[in-house]
Amino acid sequence: MDIATRVYNHKWKIDPIVRSLIDTDFYKLLMCQSVFRNRPDTHVRFSLINRTTSIPLADLIDEGELREQLDHIRSLRLSRGESTWLRGNTFYGKRQMFRSDFMEWFEGLRLPPYHLERRGDQYELTFEGLWHEVMLWEIPALAVLMELRSRAVINDMRRFELQILYARAMTRVWEKIEKLRAIDGLGIADFGTRRRHSFLWQDWCAQAMIEGLGPAFTGTSNCLIAMRREVEAIGTNAHELPMVYSALAESDEALAQAPYDVMSDWHEEHDGNLRIILPDTYGTKGFLDRAPDWLAGWTGIRIDSGDPAKAAQIALDWWRARGEDPLEKRIIFSDGLDVDSIAALHRQFAGQAMISFGWGTLLTNDFRDLVPGNGLAPFSLVCKAVAANGRPTVKLSDNPEKAMGPAGEIARYKRVFQVGDQEKIDVVV
Amino acid sequence: MDIATRVYNHKWKIDPIVRSLIDTDFYKLLMCQSVFRNRPDTHVRFSLINRTTSIPLADLIDEGELREQLDHIRSLRLSRGESTWLRGNTFYGKRQMFRSDFMEWFEGLRLPPYHLERRGDQYELTFEGLWHEVMLWEIPALAVLMELRSRAVINDMRRFELQILYARAMTRVWEKIEKLRAIDGLGIADFGTRRRHSFLWQDWCAQAMIEGLGPAFTGTSNCLIAMRREVEAIGTNAHELPMVYSALAESDEALAQAPYDVMSDWHEEHDGNLRIILPDTYGTKGFLDRAPDWLAGWTGIRIDSGDPAKAAQIALDWWRARGEDPLEKRIIFSDGLDVDSIAALHRQFAGQAMISFGWGTLLTNDFRDLVPGNGLAPFSLVCKAVAANGRPTVKLSDNPEKAMGPAGEIARYKRVFQVGDQEKIDVVV
Repeated sequence: MDIATRVYNHKWKIDPIVRSLIDTDFYKLLMCQSVFRNRPDTHVRFSLINRTTSIPLADLIDEGELREQLDHIRSLRLSRGESTWLRGNTFYGKRQMFRSDFMEWFEGLRLPPYHLERRGDQYELTFEGLWHEVMLWEIPALAVLMELRSRAVINDMRRFELQILYARAMTRVWEKIEKLRAIDGLGIADFGTRRRHSFLWQDWCAQAMIEGLGPAFTGTSNCLIAMRREVEAIGTNAHELPMVYSALAESDEALAQAPYDVMSDWHEEHDGNLRIILPDTYGTKGFLDRAPDWLAGWTGIRIDSGDPAKAAQIALDWWRARGEDPLEKRIIFSDGLDVDSIAALHRQFAGQAMISFGWGTLLTNDFRDLVPGNGLAPFSLVCKAVAANGRPTVKLSDNPEKAMGPAGEIARYKRVFQVGDQEKIDVVV
Repeated sequence: MDIATRVYNHKWKIDPIVRSLIDTDFYKLLMCQSVFRNRPDTHVRFSLINRTTSIPLADLIDEGELREQLDHIRSLRLSRGESTWLRGNTFYGKRQMFRSDFMEWFEGLRLPPYHLERRGDQYELTFEGLWHEVMLWEIPALAVLMELRSRAVINDMRRFELQILYARAMTRVWEKIEKLRAIDGLGIADFGTRRRHSFLWQDWCAQAMIEGLGPAFTGTSNCLIAMRREVEAIGTNAHELPMVYSALAESDEALAQAPYDVMSDWHEEHDGNLRIILPDTYGTKGFLDRAPDWLAGWTGIRIDSGDPAKAAQIALDWWRARGEDPLEKRIIFSDGLDVDSIAALHRQFAGQAMISFGWGTLLTNDFRDLVPGNGLAPFSLVCKAVAANGRPTVKLSDNPEKAMGPAGEIARYKRVFQVGDQEKIDVVV
């Protein structure tokens, strides 16, 4: 190693986990631009929620280290090269996906303050402010907590134990890729930024997918990795749009309409493969049954909770009922996938529609059973909009284990969206 | 990477496999010093023998590349630091193991010419000259051929396939080490220089043994690695001593005596843990039965062919018959070992004598079944003294599959050494 590099490395007070504002999911930037235009005055609160309460994050992770990492993220600004890439690159076949007014704002952005407090063996981490600013905290906050937890577990390991740990993890990922390679006509993207083992590990996994799958690897949700590895940035929209729109609704009638308002705003901004319905925020079945006909003209649907095969069947039936040909539609599976479920879903649906997969945590963080006590197993950490303009948000999804919001509001939403009994499914990641 | 390092690396015409005259087995240097003193005028021919004829070395390895590697070895001289280490280090508890006259000669040494010719799909590689010069070709010649074969197979592999190959090989070695760690009172050394996958790989394996086994790892036969990793250099003597002494014998009586002459010369030079009998050159049983009593006073025995449990039992019985207490004796197993046989032999003999293991090819070259076609599996390549002062050498060992020499001479040796029927055992490595 040359002296200059060593001296440069000595200048870091910490080893930063997130080193770029575009080390985030592509859909956050698409949604951010949409919010920046359509709801620029909305105030929100985002909050970190550890669904796996058996993992005592506040015992594992030093508060000072966590603050240093979060402070470092607040010091980040979009670099010139990153801005050039966002302005000049083609996304989903389209040049200038990001408008000039948005880019000018983004170039000046620093993330807003955070609020961190220890509560028992967990951290309470919240972000408040303008929606389009606060929303960009979600992915880096999750990535920092996931990686600090990895570091805490790995800290005691010796050099060769570490080598073997990564040798085993690499072998595991590669064997998964070899299985995926056998699936004819596969299309799969990396959706694993938020709950990755570490940045370097996600970057390695993406490179392994590039080399192992070739064109079957359609890209990564991570903008920084997409830029560096010269692959497609992948993603469309997420639950936070209907959740915040719904929280802002002034009446039950407006609430019932809110999820379609989201789609309507999106419809104006995007076409083609970016017109992907995320139907499960308040129950897939009801959402589709009550959807306006123009929504059946959209390109596809993303299945993100509940039994994925049942949800896919609901979508196929819905398209057929609306006179659409499912063979021209795309179904994107993105919930808790691993190779076996990917293979099974592909087998079941490949002949009925265009199928793609967004593979997340079990691509970029499958360290299950690799250390004693299983201390590196992934767990269910999320960072969600919990309030908008002072009102609580609600998410139901197709799995009551993923529902969130105050009980009274959940009951109201279930009534408004006519959600009946739901099947409980364990949330692993 | 800094520019100077890159420029420096560009200067290499080839990527040399053997970069030091002490990248060799310690016992070669001990034997070399002995020959330098006791038989300085002996002329020998060493020859490469590929016992695994199914591997077409001449098809796999380019002759030009092989010549470049061998030429590079001929350009090597003992470095100042290497000389300092050999002169100043403690070996087997003894300072100045290497005498000044030997070191002065070694400091001026360059290896003698080689003779290389293609014969069908194999190479004929021979070395002729003074014994103490030619003998130092054995280990580097083997290491070069083994590593060029590895490189030939690996050459077509892509970057991630290579990463996974080494990830799997590392995991395999580490899992072996974890099994060895469970053996109470184990003492084991690396004997894997000659048939290693590559130099870097042997160096990694040695470091893994250091970290994984602690004091149960007693050292390595490789002098360069012993020096760099600051562990013991391990080894005593080999078959070439009795083979050459025997070839030089002028009569059957002198032949019958020759293996004991070797021991007698060694007895004068060494004591303690260096007094290790290698009894199998012409049959273990007969050698021990006819041995002089002073040999029973030696510290131990090395088992290098045949059924190791049977040979160990023969040694135990022999010591008891000679009034020696086997609990004060050392048995060193060194033939074709892997973790299961090491565990079994330890279990069987640990209570009856001091036990150690010299673990060779299946430590430093267990790439079995890691590439399609099993093209990286280790194989049985040796480099032996085949003639001394114009007379052929003979080796019988305790396994007729390892016998070598002209048929007539083999018959004569079997008669002189009263070797009866022998059990055939497949030679894997």
